[in-house]
Amino acid sequence: MPIDEFPVTATPDVPAAGDRRAVIEGIAPAVDGGRFAVKRVVGDEVDVEADCFADGHDVLACRLRWRRDDEVEWREAPMTALGNDRWRGTFTVAEPGRYRYTVTAWIDHFLSWRHDFPRRADPEDIRVAAQVGAGLIDAAAARAEGDDAARLAAWAQRLRAAAALPALPALRAEALDEGLATIALRYPDRSLATTHPTEFPLVVDRVRARFSTWYEMFPRSCGPEPGVHGTLSDCAARLDYVAQMGFDVLYLPPIHPIGRERRKGPNNALALAPGDVGSPWAIGAAEGGHTALHPALGTLEDFRRLVTGARERGLEVALDIAFQCAPDHPYVREHPQWFRWRPDGTVQYAENPPKKYQDIYPFEFESPQWAGLWAELAGVLRFWLGEGVRIFRVDNPHTKPFPFWEWVIDRVKREHPDVIFLAEAFTRPKVMHRLAKLGFTQSYTYFTWRNTKHDLTAYFTDLTQGPGRDYFRPSCWPNTPDILPEYLQFGGRAAFMARLVLAATLSANYGIYGPAFELQEHEPREPGSEEYLDSEKYQLRAWDLARPDSLAGFIARVNAIRRDNPALQHDRGLAFFPIDNDQLICYAKVDAASENAILVVVNLDPQHTQSGWVTLDLDALGVDAERAFQVHDALTGARFLWSGARNFVELDPTRAPAHVFRIRRRIRTERDFDYFL
Amino acid sequence: MPIDEFPVTATPDVPAAGDRRAVIEGIAPAVDGGRFAVKRVVGDEVDVEADCFADGHDVLACRLRWRRDDEVEWREAPMTALGNDRWRGTFTVAEPGRYRYTVTAWIDHFLSWRHDFPRRADPEDIRVAAQVGAGLIDAAAARAEGDDAARLAAWAQRLRAAAALPALPALRAEALDEGLATIALRYPDRSLATTHPTEFPLVVDRVRARFSTWYEMFPRSCGPEPGVHGTLSDCAARLDYVAQMGFDVLYLPPIHPIGRERRKGPNNALALAPGDVGSPWAIGAAEGGHTALHPALGTLEDFRRLVTGARERGLEVALDIAFQCAPDHPYVREHPQWFRWRPDGTVQYAENPPKKYQDIYPFEFESPQWAGLWAELAGVLRFWLGEGVRIFRVDNPHTKPFPFWEWVIDRVKREHPDVIFLAEAFTRPKVMHRLAKLGFTQSYTYFTWRNTKHDLTAYFTDLTQGPGRDYFRPSCWPNTPDILPEYLQFGGRAAFMARLVLAATLSANYGIYGPAFELQEHEPREPGSEEYLDSEKYQLRAWDLARPDSLAGFIARVNAIRRDNPALQHDRGLAFFPIDNDQLICYAKVDAASENAILVVVNLDPQHTQSGWVTLDLDALGVDAERAFQVHDALTGARFLWSGARNFVELDPTRAPAHVFRIRRRIRTERDFDYFL
Repeated sequence: MPIDEFPVTATPDVPAAGDRRAVIEGIAPAVDGGRFAVKRVVGDEVDVEADCFADGHDVLACRLRWRRDDEVEWREAPMTALGNDRWRGTFTVAEPGRYRYTVTAWIDHFLSWRHDFPRRADPEDIRVAAQVGAGLIDAAAARAEGDDAARLAAWAQRLRAAAALPALPALRAEALDEGLATIALRYPDRSLATTHPTEFPLVVDRVRARFSTWYEMFPRSCGPEPGVHGTLSDCAARLDYVAQMGFDVLYLPPIHPIGRERRKGPNNALALAPGDVGSPWAIGAAEGGHTALHPALGTLEDFRRLVTGARERGLEVALDIAFQCAPDHPYVREHPQWFRWRPDGTVQYAENPPKKYQDIYPFEFESPQWAGLWAELAGVLRFWLGEGVRIFRVDNPHTKPFPFWEWVIDRVKREHPDVIFLAEAFTRPKVMHRLAKLGFTQSYTYFTWRNTKHDLTAYFTDLTQGPGRDYFRPSCWPNTPDILPEYLQFGGRAAFMARLVLAATLSANYGIYGPAFELQEHEPREPGSEEYLDSEKYQLRAWDLARPDSLAGFIARVNAIRRDNPALQHDRGLAFFPIDNDQLICYAKVDAASENAILVVVNLDPQHTQSGWVTLDLDALGVDAERAFQVHDALTGARFLWSGARNFVELDPTRAPAHVFRIRRRIRTERDFDYFL
Repeated sequence: MPIDEFPVTATPDVPAAGDRRAVIEGIAPAVDGGRFAVKRVVGDEVDVEADCFADGHDVLACRLRWRRDDEVEWREAPMTALGNDRWRGTFTVAEPGRYRYTVTAWIDHFLSWRHDFPRRADPEDIRVAAQVGAGLIDAAAARAEGDDAARLAAWAQRLRAAAALPALPALRAEALDEGLATIALRYPDRSLATTHPTEFPLVVDRVRARFSTWYEMFPRSCGPEPGVHGTLSDCAARLDYVAQMGFDVLYLPPIHPIGRERRKGPNNALALAPGDVGSPWAIGAAEGGHTALHPALGTLEDFRRLVTGARERGLEVALDIAFQCAPDHPYVREHPQWFRWRPDGTVQYAENPPKKYQDIYPFEFESPQWAGLWAELAGVLRFWLGEGVRIFRVDNPHTKPFPFWEWVIDRVKREHPDVIFLAEAFTRPKVMHRLAKLGFTQSYTYFTWRNTKHDLTAYFTDLTQGPGRDYFRPSCWPNTPDILPEYLQFGGRAAFMARLVLAATLSANYGIYGPAFELQEHEPREPGSEEYLDSEKYQLRAWDLARPDSLAGFIARVNAIRRDNPALQHDRGLAFFPIDNDQLICYAKVDAASENAILVVVNLDPQHTQSGWVTLDLDALGVDAERAFQVHDALTGARFLWSGARNFVELDPTRAPAHVFRIRRRIRTERDFDYFL
């Protein structure tokens, strides 16, 4: 009887799909095996690789499958073999949102047949193989649509006829017809395909998630004269100032009513004087909580005008999300179940014994009522989303549960995929990474404390090449209202310039806290402290923006360079080059697509002129080792003609502590004229 | 009303366990995220690490959970913090079989309380904290068993009483009572514990899986005189010879009836002469198939006697499993549905065009009847298991589907956890790794072709430190019946000695194909070929075991050194040391538990004396850099007194191409006498 009519033996303990021979493993990118999403931005080409293979010598076919989360049907992209059983496919993401991808592979008997056929030598073997091929083509015809079915069936028939004739060359030509093979390959037999069981998640953000330039400013210090509480309107009057420096995100510390109970005085004093304004992070008072505005700042109308005015200048307003309460926040009265109560009938304030933060009540996320708390906090975000805010800088996310953030970020981004969350977690590495994995769009970094060549090289190599590169987007800040680093306390103007150049060129996302930064505010509260003296966190400050020593012009120049050079708008493509002076650091960022290459040299010593020989990787820079090339300092406009890998640099910190060179490569034209790109 | 009586707000879209704040990730060891089993052997301590942390500053508690696959209840081992949020726990596996493990973690409020309490400074704060602690202890009392409940309740009561008194030192002492804390910690509140969802599989083998010494021999060449077909009884007569060389596995090529149809002649000739014995891998003839014995070898009774005789000498018989058929295998007639049929009515033989292997029919694993085929092949294994065989060397597993091997190995090992499968897959790296992942106990390697210092160093560093170290157990073979490497063809006696030392000391599992190896058989079939001339694969060979130049004595010596030194019985603990001559390679293997350290130097140049300076890592060897130490060559008995990291070595290949030094460390006794361990 025919082979396939033999009864199938009952073997109850075999797996369901034991005849699926293709294997797929090692899919990359992947975060924790697909537990968390890979991050990309709109317009990115998403390269996916996988190890695909099967037993024996049969030829494999692989496809990359991908879809938006809200689509049902998979789209497919071809995958090509890279060698060593590695395959790669690519798809392009055009809109923000959640996607997923996986890989499918199968043994393609038609491809195997085509691979083997021209290698056969024995005439009888060739004739039998032609008949095998005709059978495979018939099967493809049965799967084909429209005219293709008839074309394939005719091909199979011709192949069988040719196999019966003596002429082998004609048979070979018929069997290896390219055009018909292309048609047959449209209808592969995927009945025994293997699909990787994991649907790997992908979050696609808008481009600002990858490239952004932040300016942090306290609206209450924007008052027209010293001692007068600034308003959102005063803040709006400074939008031109901020925009002219080239920033695209204006981030405001909390703008809500500030608690009166246990309010802290200037320099974090427990004693309070009349008129002391308190910390904006002690949120909530009789006037309201996280969805209210501080009355001294103005009204929601003022806020809307600020948002609109900013947008007109290419600026986006980012709000501070600090999920904690002052003792007089309305939640304490209305929702006592969201706090932890002590046996003495008081609410547990924030503490890390012996330190006490009596002006701050943390939420009790282990409350039996946690779900209601989550819903309320999501509501806070939804309120500000309703006011057009799309960027949130989240205060201390690492003191609230990870499951909450994963839930709330996902929930917000499903409704508004353009929202950006920046995690302000200056804490242990794995905690910071977890927050990035679970959904934060950008993350603060240790950059603030990385000052030496060794430390900067090791840290940025890890950030750009380590496992976090697919989910952890660094945001580098030379200073924040909480951190005046030692380097800035003692390094003078050159230190501020060097740190700005480092942040702005090492990282596509960076920010400064101003005007403290451009005015080079550098006095600590006390020796050894990283707190600012007379910090804006606790009092109003008046800033003289017109001071002649302001770095505003320098900052504008650096930010213009970032806008003009695609290489500085990505974190990828960073390479450090050796330089024979430990006070000098040299690195390049290259964007292959735009052929844009930036070479940065920074003098890390703010006190002395330093010089040294750098050894470039000319291949990485796309420079012809045989020809001279121009390096054009975008900071100063100076141009140098360099040649070869080793070149001399000298930087005087009193003039400019850094070069930001654009590499201008020579292009050979057809007539052998050279010109500079 | 009391806090916990507030109604829970209905929030349908929150996750089920949002109040579980502990996070567990990065569990190691893990193979492909738990898709495949980690491998260990009986008696091993299984170290498991994980990243465990939570939001905020609360103190975490972690436990390693593990159980045998057939147990329902988890056992638990404590985990301790290593720093950087990494935790480690250990359990010991006493019997072979399948296990699983995972990690559970929770925020321990009692531990947090104990951590914070001594850090509190404010008297009022201390009193309130004492009451908080009393509440936690009451809760522990409610969970406690037996006397502990009463003890804890009394403690809570005393703590509350002490909190009401003025004396703080007494309150502190009461709160921080060590003994009572130990009791309380027995009853943690694990209601909000997080358990990692993956149960990571672990396969525990018997020790021979990790440390084995194989000898491959063709029984049919064991005949008493040249030209006479050897029998299993003749083979049994050579057991003493094999055992005296120190081997513990005797591996026999297939012992089944050999097909007569299309049988190959000597040196793989298509033409056949009368009396040609054919290849043992062309399995099956009228006399039977995979469960039959070749009549010329003897009976099942003879086989059983061989197995028993071997066991009496500390040897185990390993069989060759080659799942393929000669054209006259009974399966072809009885189960045509297990083969692929060609349009001309013949069975598809093995081929890789233009190469044809007409004497071999592969099974068709894509047959609709695949399940029955699987069951039959499992039955073949079960048959030999019934004959007491517990080691299988699997021929070309990479030409049969991966799902089949995963199923059949698991099935066999659930019944017989002591079975060892060696994968003979000399193929692409990812294919070899997949076979190891899915269950093969040991794997052939590329060792056979790794001859230079660079290649050996890179390859064994990857094998012992790369991702495969938890599942890929290398088995290193200087030769096989299929592979006579070039190095042995031209290197003479010294090459055989060097390759033996390398295999035996770099790898805890190794084997040779003899007597070809010890008799230094080195003529290829033709120049450029790795096939033996007059290969035993196709004809009988007579070996003169008594030849004076035999390496049998040398092999016995090397194998004795392996038995005496635990460091050589593991693949871990391998470290390469620099030596300033590329023809010399130097490495150590260290077993910390037994304080056993072996230092090997091999001259890779079989033609010339080579010398050089080695730079040891004395720390890795456990040697005091300030004191001389003895290196004792276990091959020759020579002793050298060395001191410091740099030492001179010279090796004359005509005498001995290798040192296998045992490091004898000085131990300082209480009376400051030194002696050698």
